[in-house]
Amino acid sequence: MFGAAKLLSYVEDDYGGVKVEMKEAMDSATFVSMLRASISHWREQGKKGVWIKLPIELVNLVEPAVVEGFWYHHAEPKYIMLVYWIPQSAHTIPANASHRVSVGVVVMNEKDELLVVQEKTGTFGGTGVWKFPTGVVDEGEDICAAAVREVKEETGIDAEFMEVLAFRQSHRMFFQKSGLFFVCLAQPLSFDIRKQDSEIEAAQWMPFQEYAKQPYCQKTEVVQYVIEICSAKKNGKYSGFAPVPTTSSFSDQKSYLYLDSHFRRRQ
Amino acid sequence: MFGAAKLLSYVEDDYGGVKVEMKEAMDSATFVSMLRASISHWREQGKKGVWIKLPIELVNLVEPAVVEGFWYHHAEPKYIMLVYWIPQSAHTIPANASHRVSVGVVVMNEKDELLVVQEKTGTFGGTGVWKFPTGVVDEGEDICAAAVREVKEETGIDAEFMEVLAFRQSHRMFFQKSGLFFVCLAQPLSFDIRKQDSEIEAAQWMPFQEYAKQPYCQKTEVVQYVIEICSAKKNGKYSGFAPVPTTSSFSDQKSYLYLDSHFRRRQ
Repeated sequence: MFGAAKLLSYVEDDYGGVKVEMKEAMDSATFVSMLRASISHWREQGKKGVWIKLPIELVNLVEPAVVEGFWYHHAEPKYIMLVYWIPQSAHTIPANASHRVSVGVVVMNEKDELLVVQEKTGTFGGTGVWKFPTGVVDEGEDICAAAVREVKEETGIDAEFMEVLAFRQSHRMFFQKSGLFFVCLAQPLSFDIRKQDSEIEAAQWMPFQEYAKQPYCQKTEVVQYVIEICSAKKNGKYSGFAPVPTTSSFSDQKSYLYLDSHFRRRQ
Repeated sequence: MFGAAKLLSYVEDDYGGVKVEMKEAMDSATFVSMLRASISHWREQGKKGVWIKLPIELVNLVEPAVVEGFWYHHAEPKYIMLVYWIPQSAHTIPANASHRVSVGVVVMNEKDELLVVQEKTGTFGGTGVWKFPTGVVDEGEDICAAAVREVKEETGIDAEFMEVLAFRQSHRMFFQKSGLFFVCLAQPLSFDIRKQDSEIEAAQWMPFQEYAKQPYCQKTEVVQYVIEICSAKKNGKYSGFAPVPTTSSFSDQKSYLYLDSHFRRRQ
């Protein structure tokens, strides 16, 4: 090799691989020459996986990396993560995030009325179906916080999170990703509805029996289960999962553990 | 406009947007001219979000699309999804899949022994900590199936899934994504351990009390909860969530709903 090319800056990961986070603008010829020199250096060192994170400003380097044998691992609005496997063996690169998480929230008042909405768009837009508030859990958001936020956003009602009543895992939903839908129970703290205009057609407190009688509810197996669960819950015959804050041994971060609410109460 | 450029093929989505799935190779100049003509057509029609799916073979079109104002939505090994928002208003493009899902599996035999492993790599590699089998749920895989698969892969033990004992949601884990970790209970159907060589250092049946006495278990809050849950479970004082197969009203696909196992048994 004539005058060895400079290597890309990298750090080692815990799995025998290396991670490169590109930050400075670079033309593609320089990038390719540094990338080739780096890969042969890492190969000599017995490294396995190579991760390259490219901010969207460096989009000019995506094609050259793919031409060198990299493939896409995942992308977010502001970056793409590319990956390469040096050994001859089959790669053990972990998969990308695979699940979208959403919540549906059962909010019942003292008169046995359920907080329900009609949506303007999406699957239920224009169908006239009354359903409980639902929504996607934001990145980094706790399920219990998302439930309270969605109720507030869609109906203006303040609510206190009680427990997860059940959850459903579905496949090949949004962009072929899987989904985890958590059915939550929350207790209303206010009663005057102020519905959101952009997504919600109407919102009201509806007698539980009237909700359950809708043809949509009658023919949807999961909704039937939720109706039975709500009835059992009212009679104290059902135990969902309640959140307890825990700390990790690896970081100071708080994570909620959700466990049998009857057990939790006995502790 | 001189001789209107051809439009890209597209379909409409349920939210007032359009989706383009590029399949044929194209040079970037042609692509840019078709893209500009298409966007002005969609703007006249009042369309909002524009999705473009580019297979990795068409990586040459990523940079031109970004130059035209698209940004990354998500990527998988074989494609990248780009997105653009036509109106002046703030976009309402839904977020990408946000959670990785993993399982840890409690497998206990009749002698009150727990199935435990020592890992070769990762956080626990070389620490000597005995832990229950854990692993990532594959894309499209059911949580209950993943639990049985991980136990089989790591230890050779056949097991039957019983229930989800608890779950924990953590943030900023793998690549800043969130994680959902499901603690599962499974019943062993075989007893002779044949450990996996690539990832597992050792595997054994260990008396439950001995497992619980490890310093790692003593100082890890979540493990303490799991130990208490297991004790309560042995005494019939704990109810996890058991899976029931359900069908959706929108597709023939089977999805598992996980709900209070005591309630499930009474049904």
